[in-house]
Amino acid sequence: MTEYPVLDRINKPNDIKKIQEKDLPELAREIRCFLTESVSKTGGHLSSNLGIVEITMALHLFLDLPEDKVVFDVGHQTYVHKLLTGRKNFETLRKKGGISGFPKSSESDCDSFDTGHSSTALSVAAGFVAARELSGKKNKVVAVVGDGALTGGMALEAINNIGKFKSNMIIILNDNEMSIDQNVGGMANYLGKIRTKKSYVKFKSGLENMLDEIPGGKGERIVERLKHIKDSFKTFFVSGMLFEDFGLTYIGPINGHDIDQVLTALKSASSVDKPVIIHAITQKGRGYLPAEKRPGKFHGIGPFDIKTGKLIKHPMTKTFTEGFAEKMLELGEEDDKILGITAAMEFGTGLREFAERYPDRFFDVGIAEQHAVTFAAALAKSGYKPVVAIYSTFLQRSYDQILHDVCLTKQPVVFVIDRAGITGEDGETHQGIFDLSYLTNIPGMTVMAPMNCAELKEMLEYAVNLNAPVAIRYPKCGESPSAAGLHVSEIEYGKAERLSEGRDVALFSVGNSIDIGLELKTRLEADGLSVSLYNSRFVCPADTEAVKDAAKKHKVLVTVEENVKKGGFGESIAEIIAENGLQTGFVNASLKDSFIEHGCRTELLKAYGLDTEEIYGKIRRFFG
Amino acid sequence: MTEYPVLDRINKPNDIKKIQEKDLPELAREIRCFLTESVSKTGGHLSSNLGIVEITMALHLFLDLPEDKVVFDVGHQTYVHKLLTGRKNFETLRKKGGISGFPKSSESDCDSFDTGHSSTALSVAAGFVAARELSGKKNKVVAVVGDGALTGGMALEAINNIGKFKSNMIIILNDNEMSIDQNVGGMANYLGKIRTKKSYVKFKSGLENMLDEIPGGKGERIVERLKHIKDSFKTFFVSGMLFEDFGLTYIGPINGHDIDQVLTALKSASSVDKPVIIHAITQKGRGYLPAEKRPGKFHGIGPFDIKTGKLIKHPMTKTFTEGFAEKMLELGEEDDKILGITAAMEFGTGLREFAERYPDRFFDVGIAEQHAVTFAAALAKSGYKPVVAIYSTFLQRSYDQILHDVCLTKQPVVFVIDRAGITGEDGETHQGIFDLSYLTNIPGMTVMAPMNCAELKEMLEYAVNLNAPVAIRYPKCGESPSAAGLHVSEIEYGKAERLSEGRDVALFSVGNSIDIGLELKTRLEADGLSVSLYNSRFVCPADTEAVKDAAKKHKVLVTVEENVKKGGFGESIAEIIAENGLQTGFVNASLKDSFIEHGCRTELLKAYGLDTEEIYGKIRRFFG
Repeated sequence: MTEYPVLDRINKPNDIKKIQEKDLPELAREIRCFLTESVSKTGGHLSSNLGIVEITMALHLFLDLPEDKVVFDVGHQTYVHKLLTGRKNFETLRKKGGISGFPKSSESDCDSFDTGHSSTALSVAAGFVAARELSGKKNKVVAVVGDGALTGGMALEAINNIGKFKSNMIIILNDNEMSIDQNVGGMANYLGKIRTKKSYVKFKSGLENMLDEIPGGKGERIVERLKHIKDSFKTFFVSGMLFEDFGLTYIGPINGHDIDQVLTALKSASSVDKPVIIHAITQKGRGYLPAEKRPGKFHGIGPFDIKTGKLIKHPMTKTFTEGFAEKMLELGEEDDKILGITAAMEFGTGLREFAERYPDRFFDVGIAEQHAVTFAAALAKSGYKPVVAIYSTFLQRSYDQILHDVCLTKQPVVFVIDRAGITGEDGETHQGIFDLSYLTNIPGMTVMAPMNCAELKEMLEYAVNLNAPVAIRYPKCGESPSAAGLHVSEIEYGKAERLSEGRDVALFSVGNSIDIGLELKTRLEADGLSVSLYNSRFVCPADTEAVKDAAKKHKVLVTVEENVKKGGFGESIAEIIAENGLQTGFVNASLKDSFIEHGCRTELLKAYGLDTEEIYGKIRRFFG
Repeated sequence: MTEYPVLDRINKPNDIKKIQEKDLPELAREIRCFLTESVSKTGGHLSSNLGIVEITMALHLFLDLPEDKVVFDVGHQTYVHKLLTGRKNFETLRKKGGISGFPKSSESDCDSFDTGHSSTALSVAAGFVAARELSGKKNKVVAVVGDGALTGGMALEAINNIGKFKSNMIIILNDNEMSIDQNVGGMANYLGKIRTKKSYVKFKSGLENMLDEIPGGKGERIVERLKHIKDSFKTFFVSGMLFEDFGLTYIGPINGHDIDQVLTALKSASSVDKPVIIHAITQKGRGYLPAEKRPGKFHGIGPFDIKTGKLIKHPMTKTFTEGFAEKMLELGEEDDKILGITAAMEFGTGLREFAERYPDRFFDVGIAEQHAVTFAAALAKSGYKPVVAIYSTFLQRSYDQILHDVCLTKQPVVFVIDRAGITGEDGETHQGIFDLSYLTNIPGMTVMAPMNCAELKEMLEYAVNLNAPVAIRYPKCGESPSAAGLHVSEIEYGKAERLSEGRDVALFSVGNSIDIGLELKTRLEADGLSVSLYNSRFVCPADTEAVKDAAKKHKVLVTVEENVKKGGFGESIAEIIAENGLQTGFVNASLKDSFIEHGCRTELLKAYGLDTEEIYGKIRRFFG
């Protein structure tokens, strides 16, 4: 067992303030060591947490938690914050009932707001500042955002609004030159230009001298000096003009791994009666060599061997992501109108190989899901076949663009939606359990779900040639061995595929829920019941004729889908049953209408409505 | 009849190029006169179109349509563009079958992309540029955006991406200092600073001299000169640094009412091998005094008297918006935790009086629906009671924020959703027919709909004290006289209200669809049938007990709602019927799952599924 003599002395919020200054570097080292060891066993987000150790320490030294508010954008970089608030049970990280990998108010009142999606922290912090102004309180408000998050429009909306505040708010721009993949666009270039100036060295010495003069409360003097410096040496500060133009005061760039520098900047910033942005340069994965070398790989990672950094792979079936990646290469070869578009997820979505082989036809727009979709719409309108690959939960941010820019004028954009259904360990903010609901209410949208990788490939080829808006959704998990073995027949628009014919139970499964369908079939057949198993294929439009026919010929109709019930596939089948007055029993097996916390997928399926035993029980009731 | 000798010579795209230069001012005058006269009769968007006459003329002189692409952001400012492409049948404007008030590819191939919501044009133009680069074509691409649209995050996502293009794209920033209401935030302040420099005068004289030297194709020389000037007189151009920091070339500010200046700027801009932003200052409502004085009033307006500018009011019942405005004043007085938040719609949403009376508790965040919602979530988390008033169609852009930032952690934000259902004349992009679907699939969201203004007031009071996320949706149209007369009983969570008791038909209406319910009731009773009429009140959670009870006691169950069928109220009732095996006839009266074009509301209701006669017929079938 590794020993953590300094970290051991931190067991609740603000304990860090009792640590002697000379021991802080050792604390930073222990935190890095602790995190690397823990995550190597449980999996989790590593690179971003190793990169934010000193910034988090400085924040905890500077703030009084929980009265002061610190909001972490995205929130996967809060492991250090969790440790410093006494949450050390990292062996339970991301497990059901254990600590979450993201900030959770329910876990600690030092987690001021729950986050998970990118680019929300500035709006949250703005709300906290407005509340403070209304209530006359004096608490500090700090938002910690990555440079990647600044490519998200929502963050820029917030910056536009923050500029008018007349009281203090601190934004720490944690600039590591990456979101998950390399950052792109004008903002990234701009920050790059500032970084190369390396003026933070100057900043450091200049500001440290000033600090020597302060002791108690002479903040205004600092500000005056800052202003003076600013006027005298415009080139020194001109780098931050973009933010200044928006009405923010800019400080930086500073070295985000130097606790003194961060603390100094925080103190200076807090004495200004308006919003201040502190631009801190950090290194993703810092202190663990494999993560320094490949920060992308160690962004979110499974258990790994700590010596080599190699993943401890569990034997796994083929993932849908791999199937998508393979088919994209093939389609890209056959048809030069095929384009790949991602929002900062080249690797996760499986578009990397396509990007390497067809760089001109690949577009990474940054964390900008709204722009990605409308950009694709215009490319489609121009005769191209854009394939937009965005995770189910992140595509939520493009609801309006899918509706208004793609479907309204029927642009042939193909949406490839990975991480649909329960993704598991990342919890509430990352489950892809709403896509069937939010996509199917949009007129003209076709929604498909494949039961295995072979069918995904067929569907993708079908989709790029459909000449209409279409979405294909599939889960993070691989195809099951039993699903993998199923033969894939030709796809016919709006038609479900009957895999077996029976008389008692008609079971319509959506995509990978075929696994539950197969299991139910086996159980029911063991009871002497016969089952018609349908691979629904099309969630929208649903195969009304097949449903009507099945309702007439069977005693019970069952739908199985990994999506909330409200607005999902089952509900549209219920609509067909009720409006047509079909006389059939009906079991809608879907996820409960609730958010679903972190944990392992099979455990969560069982807890939230897709327990095979329970569904079996509901079906059996119709047979006495 | 007013005569339009110059305008008469324009009957198809590019006809303007045949007009002699000396006649262009007369053409501008005639266009303004034509538009003011037309809109005074039909109603429509006036101020923004009067403000963009010269810019549009310059674009038509400069571009070859439809090969070149011009994308108008929002699109309500395309009346001039429509005239110049020969669409002069303005007596049909916004009428069913007539010309739309927004760009429509189906109307003309000079409308390069359909728009309606704000801040999409830069993404569309980016897509057009990427397509041009891929195809090797040479067409020009121009986006025309207002300064208001730049407060929308999506536009900023696009700017971030556009900066990296290595070929030309032109953005005309039509800066009139307004969105619909006055603009707010850092961007507005920034543009304000540039404007006050009045450097466009300098620009004009400087550039005109240069132009004298050009004649044919010596664009590069201009650019060189521009660059030179830029370096020599940094203060002259430094104003555009914010855009330059993003990688765009900035030209301006110029006078957007001087065709020569706009043309000169367009020519200069098009010779640069990267994106260029032309900052043009314009005046909303220009040329029609009442609109110049009150551009907000004449933004979107009904028929008015052209001499006085006074609205020709039809006798109208009280609008829900008025009811909301009144109740907000009352609640604001009683409870100082109540806040009002709008996204650039202070007037339209009915928050103006609240804003005037409680300026500290009112927040206009600009066209930034995403930020508005998350900002509200943080205020709610801080103990306040934010009321977010956003139109149904625009709230689509906040789907993810409602889900991720409000409902996931159960923040007590009240959403007040005006313009729900068919809004009519603005067409496809503005109908509020999806909110019941996209809101009810979010766990923990309560959705209510009032049948009249009195009930809206009760609901609002109920909502601000519910301590949970809640939405109230209502239409643009006023309460009907028959609905206005209905007594409002106390609200009980999740409970429908039975207004009459019968034995044959149970009719559940949603909000203002009570009007259809009352009409059906009268018709059915005339046939000797008895009707239980329910005011559903809660769309989510639906009153399952009332539905079960009604299904047992009546032969037919009917739902009526002004929302698409998929994911709507009726579908959730169908789910209750099917899963509980209830033996009842069922009629789901809702809007067809399609987009709905412009036209008058009653006409559209009839055409898209809420034809009382048709619903009556469907119900009658169950009674032979």
